[in-house]
Amino acid sequence: MSGRLIGIGVGPGDPELMTIKAARALAEADLVVHFAKAGATSHARTIAANHIRAGVEELPLLYPLTTEVPRDGIVYRDALREFYDTAAATLAAQLDAGRAVAVICEGDPMFYGSYMHLHVRLAPRYPTQVIAGVTGMSGCWSAVGAPIAQGDDVFMVLPATLPEPELERRLKDADAAVVMKLGRHLPKIRRTLARVGRLERAIYVERGSTAAAVMMRLADKPDDAAPYFAIVLVPGWEERA
Amino acid sequence: MSGRLIGIGVGPGDPELMTIKAARALAEADLVVHFAKAGATSHARTIAANHIRAGVEELPLLYPLTTEVPRDGIVYRDALREFYDTAAATLAAQLDAGRAVAVICEGDPMFYGSYMHLHVRLAPRYPTQVIAGVTGMSGCWSAVGAPIAQGDDVFMVLPATLPEPELERRLKDADAAVVMKLGRHLPKIRRTLARVGRLERAIYVERGSTAAAVMMRLADKPDDAAPYFAIVLVPGWEERA
Repeated sequence: MSGRLIGIGVGPGDPELMTIKAARALAEADLVVHFAKAGATSHARTIAANHIRAGVEELPLLYPLTTEVPRDGIVYRDALREFYDTAAATLAAQLDAGRAVAVICEGDPMFYGSYMHLHVRLAPRYPTQVIAGVTGMSGCWSAVGAPIAQGDDVFMVLPATLPEPELERRLKDADAAVVMKLGRHLPKIRRTLARVGRLERAIYVERGSTAAAVMMRLADKPDDAAPYFAIVLVPGWEERA
Repeated sequence: MSGRLIGIGVGPGDPELMTIKAARALAEADLVVHFAKAGATSHARTIAANHIRAGVEELPLLYPLTTEVPRDGIVYRDALREFYDTAAATLAAQLDAGRAVAVICEGDPMFYGSYMHLHVRLAPRYPTQVIAGVTGMSGCWSAVGAPIAQGDDVFMVLPATLPEPELERRLKDADAAVVMKLGRHLPKIRRTLARVGRLERAIYVERGSTAAAVMMRLADKPDDAAPYFAIVLVPGWEERA
């Protein structure tokens, strides 16, 4: 008898923004897997903590240490590929033993998530279920109370890593946008939004749906410090009907 | 004592994809409000049914009948504005009476939802909470098991109503995309995806997270019939690391 793989979205941070389905699947899992950086706490693990059965077996998958290695280089890519190959092999052994293997993921598993790397390796070979989750960006615009897109709006998710001219071109071309993975790119994002005339309505958000949330107009932010997972909302919508 | 307004996302269709927070807020509401077309069942109401307390007061907000009126015209816009103004006034009276008024919304309340029209009218005057939900598109790509975007991908939501040349330009410019509100626009979407070389990987989805789901490669769809809320997924992601 073969096991089954379950990719579980646990939502953006507030444990209550987990779905009923995610909570149930977690309670039924034989093995609960999460991704983590060595030495750091997994956000997904923290969010899901109250729904993980006492005594259930857990498996952290620790990302390879790559602090010394350029993230766009071949060495980094190879290290990551080997990491996902090894992780998939470890999970395959559990699935072969007939176990229900749950991989918990912050936000939604199929939207910019590490789970996808396991999914593409294992879903062709094992019964697999993906449980959608509330995305980090939904958590942010809901916490702020900012209607983001309506009607026939074109909505874009843009990584802050984009080169400045491309970012400018795309922001001009979007009715509404979310800029992700801010980190050290915040000054560039601020400059670009000012240049395209959208700084006034842009909103800076860190850890949107948690008690530690930081939310303010980007124009009011007094410094250029931003964690990697902070985002900027560029609402497209104003009352039209 | 003033009441409070709660915009509740009930997710994409599967009742279990409601969040724990949505279920709790619904159970505590004094008045449960939903949008509906006259004579039609509200999807949000159907999804949330098991969490609405027996005997709680409910208020359907019936969209104005607009079948005879062009949807991009001034008459339609005025009718809708009056509808939202009247609905907001009705809810304001309930809020003034100190009640907890829950507006249930399919998907996520702030992402292409009717709730936003009430929110902009009422949130400046009353304590308001928005409970994020799983979006319809997340429900679809999870049901299909299709990783949609990863790493530094640019992701776009495009309405199928866009003119064909603009749709073509934007699809060429996106790593990953979702085309929404298909309806009678399906042939245009199919042609355009074929022309930009992305028809092969495009996936057609109706009612993604429900038992009545229809999912297939768009290239395999034998006809041009699509309901208004069907979507096409254009996954950007393939294994890279």
